Amino acid sequence: MEKNLDVRARVLAENDRRASEIRARFAAQGTLVLNLISSPGSGKTTLLEATVAKLRERYRLGAIEGDIATERDAQRLRDLDIPAHQILTGGACHLDARQVHDALERIQFGPLDFLFVENVGNLICPTSYDLGEDAKVVVLSVVEGDDKPFKYPAIFAAARIAVISKADLLPHTEFRMEEVRAQVRSLRPDGRILVTSTRGEPGIRDWLAYLEEALAEKRREKRA
Amino acid sequence: MEKNLDVRARVLAENDRRASEIRARFAAQGTLVLNLISSPGSGKTTLLEATVAKLRERYRLGAIEGDIATERDAQRLRDLDIPAHQILTGGACHLDARQVHDALERIQFGPLDFLFVENVGNLICPTSYDLGEDAKVVVLSVVEGDDKPFKYPAIFAAARIAVISKADLLPHTEFRMEEVRAQVRSLRPDGRILVTSTRGEPGIRDWLAYLEEALAEKRREKRA
Repeated sequence: MEKNLDVRARVLAENDRRASEIRARFAAQGTLVLNLISSPGSGKTTLLEATVAKLRERYRLGAIEGDIATERDAQRLRDLDIPAHQILTGGACHLDARQVHDALERIQFGPLDFLFVENVGNLICPTSYDLGEDAKVVVLSVVEGDDKPFKYPAIFAAARIAVISKADLLPHTEFRMEEVRAQVRSLRPDGRILVTSTRGEPGIRDWLAYLEEALAEKRREKRA
Repeated sequence: MEKNLDVRARVLAENDRRASEIRARFAAQGTLVLNLISSPGSGKTTLLEATVAKLRERYRLGAIEGDIATERDAQRLRDLDIPAHQILTGGACHLDARQVHDALERIQFGPLDFLFVENVGNLICPTSYDLGEDAKVVVLSVVEGDDKPFKYPAIFAAARIAVISKADLLPHTEFRMEEVRAQVRSLRPDGRILVTSTRGEPGIRDWLAYLEEALAEKRREKRA
């Protein structure tokens, strides 16, 4: 086990070095980078599609999609006319900073306002791998149940934003929003919860407002 | 990376040795052991609750629950008066055979007809770790989307049974059952798909029929 831990520590240290390079690059460009993490099927790509549809007229957008297999998610975003690169991890359960770095070499996005990095569908492994993002965003659909923050505490502590998705399905579930709010508050006191739906109310306006606010703040910091 | 692969190969070899011991033990006892694997929130524990309610009068049941944190799932099953042991993995994204072996030492189930092992909520990591089960059962809720088998091919190839859960929510999703059937068929030609709901139609009768059939077959093999 000792050797195992050594290997893991080395891998994470190397990852952090790469992540710092990515962070410095996007700090210079004033690009807001978000690392979206969730279970499979909580609606990350669907949220991004809705986001792109709303923002693409006014902002320069790019996406990096992580999956074990299939080019499907990047294609869904390319269909909306934004540049999107698919990283296939083979079997790995998370993206790492080297993969993101290599993707950036390959796709050459040009100057961006927002770069969305959609991680492999997994509530556990992606938590430890810094990708050079400004914030981790954890997405939890109301269908997954209101016990999840305490069952997967590391990601809910690491994410600055928790997006509660598929809120239009609330009437068909026993999901208690207050229960989730309390768990998130205890794991991440300064965390924000944004309730969204891409089909009907409440829509994604709080999420869009957060994005614009976070970008403006990053630009202010850059000037300061 | 070489050293990394060596460590992984050693870990998996050691795991397989333990798994064989577990398998031999339950072969001798004629206990059917199922390893349930899915994303967080696809309804594994809820399916087990419904299963226990239907089977506990006629069969001896036991459960081992895997989670990163919280004793909640084992407690839900203990509330139904079956013995259930919670394994907390700390941060690990899957159960391993050593943990199951140690749990069996601790809880001393006595003779069982069915042992349900509910893995950590994760569609990726649990795939490689044999726990000594008779079959892996992958659970996919209709809310997660019909692209998942091809996005997570390893688990859909490894699982003899794919349970499609939360079928009562089908009218509220764009899930195409035929799409999933085709993907599963291509990944696992002899796999079976069982559509379930614990709230209304179609219920869990196909799943219960499978369980009784699989147990009877295991007992026949034992006598032969």
